Amino acid sequence: MVTVNKNYLKLQESYLFSNIAKKVGAFCEAHPGEKIIRLGIGDVTQPLAPVIIDSLHKAVDEMAHAETFHGYAPDLGYEFLRNAIVRHDYQSRGCQIEADEIFISDGAKSDSGNIQEIFGLDNKVAVCDPVYPVYVDTNVMAGRSGSYCEKNENFHGIIYMPCREENGFLPEFPKEVPDLIYLCFPNNPTGSAITKPELQKWVDYANLNGAVIIYDAAYEAYISEEGIPHSIFECEGARTCAIELRSFSKNAGFTGVRLGFTVISKELVRDGVRLHDLWARRHGTKFNGAPYIVQRAGEAVYSLEGQIQLKEQIAAYMRNARVIYEGLKEAGYAVYGGVNAPYIWLKTPDSMTSWEFFDYLLEKAKVVGTPGSGFGAHGEGYFRLTAFGSYEDTKEAIDRISRL
Amino acid sequence: MVTVNKNYLKLQESYLFSNIAKKVGAFCEAHPGEKIIRLGIGDVTQPLAPVIIDSLHKAVDEMAHAETFHGYAPDLGYEFLRNAIVRHDYQSRGCQIEADEIFISDGAKSDSGNIQEIFGLDNKVAVCDPVYPVYVDTNVMAGRSGSYCEKNENFHGIIYMPCREENGFLPEFPKEVPDLIYLCFPNNPTGSAITKPELQKWVDYANLNGAVIIYDAAYEAYISEEGIPHSIFECEGARTCAIELRSFSKNAGFTGVRLGFTVISKELVRDGVRLHDLWARRHGTKFNGAPYIVQRAGEAVYSLEGQIQLKEQIAAYMRNARVIYEGLKEAGYAVYGGVNAPYIWLKTPDSMTSWEFFDYLLEKAKVVGTPGSGFGAHGEGYFRLTAFGSYEDTKEAIDRISRL
Repeated sequence: MVTVNKNYLKLQESYLFSNIAKKVGAFCEAHPGEKIIRLGIGDVTQPLAPVIIDSLHKAVDEMAHAETFHGYAPDLGYEFLRNAIVRHDYQSRGCQIEADEIFISDGAKSDSGNIQEIFGLDNKVAVCDPVYPVYVDTNVMAGRSGSYCEKNENFHGIIYMPCREENGFLPEFPKEVPDLIYLCFPNNPTGSAITKPELQKWVDYANLNGAVIIYDAAYEAYISEEGIPHSIFECEGARTCAIELRSFSKNAGFTGVRLGFTVISKELVRDGVRLHDLWARRHGTKFNGAPYIVQRAGEAVYSLEGQIQLKEQIAAYMRNARVIYEGLKEAGYAVYGGVNAPYIWLKTPDSMTSWEFFDYLLEKAKVVGTPGSGFGAHGEGYFRLTAFGSYEDTKEAIDRISRL
Repeated sequence: MVTVNKNYLKLQESYLFSNIAKKVGAFCEAHPGEKIIRLGIGDVTQPLAPVIIDSLHKAVDEMAHAETFHGYAPDLGYEFLRNAIVRHDYQSRGCQIEADEIFISDGAKSDSGNIQEIFGLDNKVAVCDPVYPVYVDTNVMAGRSGSYCEKNENFHGIIYMPCREENGFLPEFPKEVPDLIYLCFPNNPTGSAITKPELQKWVDYANLNGAVIIYDAAYEAYISEEGIPHSIFECEGARTCAIELRSFSKNAGFTGVRLGFTVISKELVRDGVRLHDLWARRHGTKFNGAPYIVQRAGEAVYSLEGQIQLKEQIAAYMRNARVIYEGLKEAGYAVYGGVNAPYIWLKTPDSMTSWEFFDYLLEKAKVVGTPGSGFGAHGEGYFRLTAFGSYEDTKEAIDRISRL
């Protein structure tokens, strides 16, 4: 008699986005004809840049002829893409990463969910709170947690590191030393960034304790300030304690194209085993490569034209971020993020809960955002707005909020 | 201190294809200028059909404009594709499958590796021997096996069901009743097919014992005979015991495009839980959708033009299969498969081992195939040739072998 993976039963149904949809739907029904502006989604809205469209068409044409057709891709991904990544994202920043330390994948969500598989079930996992839910959920599904605690709104056995206004939204070393540490900077959902000296402390801490940092750098393209590391490999010693996850979703609009990569140095050894070898085994056994045409599109991201076109794309989103950040600040809100990230994190006024503020904003301004409590217990009292809408909508949304 | 997943250390390095590459490399070096013909690979060689190329271009153009741009895909995949699948692959064969029982993925390899995650670690796994290695390896990695036994060339705790000439390459019910049963028909590597009454026996067996069948139907498009089921859902009762995996790799040449799907009926319940819900949770948490452009290409597979063009593509491969099958039979070999599958499985002559025959064929005919022992202990004494080469090469290879 087959048994199911009972760890799945510990998971809470994710009501966050379905609740939002329900509330927005009910509002629309009650107020037909009202224009609602959605700044809640984390999905991009600008079309793919011309250079990427060109490279996709070219690669599709290659697939039409036997001489240039491409079947199964190499396990780690095509060299043309891995070489471009190494040159532009690492060697240009002085990070010592080789092309065979890059694993091309179908996106950072898959990688951030799958990476825990190469570790033992006895590892203690630490995450920031609030947090991108995939880190926690996939560890729960694998069996690295106890049951869910309704009272504390968290899982037994997982170490939560509160990130709130009081600590500048940066996690502190927890009392109990964790084995696996998930860090995401620039951060989703708080939009906070970490300086190189602060990140260096985590690298030193991990090396000292034999821990491994899973570093999600999906939003690095939004960094606008000096002194903010784009990669954890800018820190000394990261090669022996860190795994970095990267995405093409937010820097090149690939949310519907699907491409990402994971970086594991060959010096990262635990239990006498190279984690690079374990991930290579996992990658080669449970995955069969990102599409050739998509890998060619990824290569175009690194072309000179690509870099110019994508800089404009990001600048447009960051203009939205500034509109939100400055508009809300002027209106008297306590606002965070938005400078090195496409997310603006605000404190709800008058001690409203996240959901109360959601209702208030929907009712009074017809603007949809995301309640901070949806990202964890310590997100309560906060609210996330994203910069991925159009400029006109963003401006109007902030005007409406300001007039309240 | 982080620990690694020690189950990975039980895995044997897969030397099969690297050994083949080494031997071929050494031969080429020793015999420069000789033309070697490779009938060992499982990768397609024909370019994508024109209708698929057209749909890719069209979808790429959509991604170039904000109004038609597509970001994150729906969790289960786009409805246009799931509807086409249900209509053409299931309802047209009288199988009662609904669109929301289809989960679009990036390919059958990922699905066949990931599907075990929704089951408990205490389940007993049964596989055919010889077998596609992913089924076994992913269960070993998850912890559903003991250590590797050098003597028997298999993993303790896994149930191996020998498939040899004596039983028509069809597995028999094992002594110990398994919980999870992996079946692949038409089969890789043996090329054997299963009749509907024979498959019905397995469905009945699974329902009787509360087992679940993971049915890999990646090669169904190659079925040429009547009475061979294209889907396990043609059998009565499959909705309560079977999960079906499908691929676009071999029916439409998508090995480098990446698309597949998994079918789980909402009636499949174990431990009081719908497996559909568990897979939906896994799919939504550890995967972020197949690319929009690729899903549009998948839709084109089901168009009238697509069906005509792909029938021709498969017919070309099956012409190769016939050349191999009949040529070898005439030359006195015992040959199997090749009628409902792109794989020809032959018995090595003169009691040669699989690797001895590999060396013999390379040395004497300059033809490369795959030693059957690479697929499991019971593949010893057999050899796999594939129909995915060009017609001219295939014909020449068989002429050379016949002249030996």
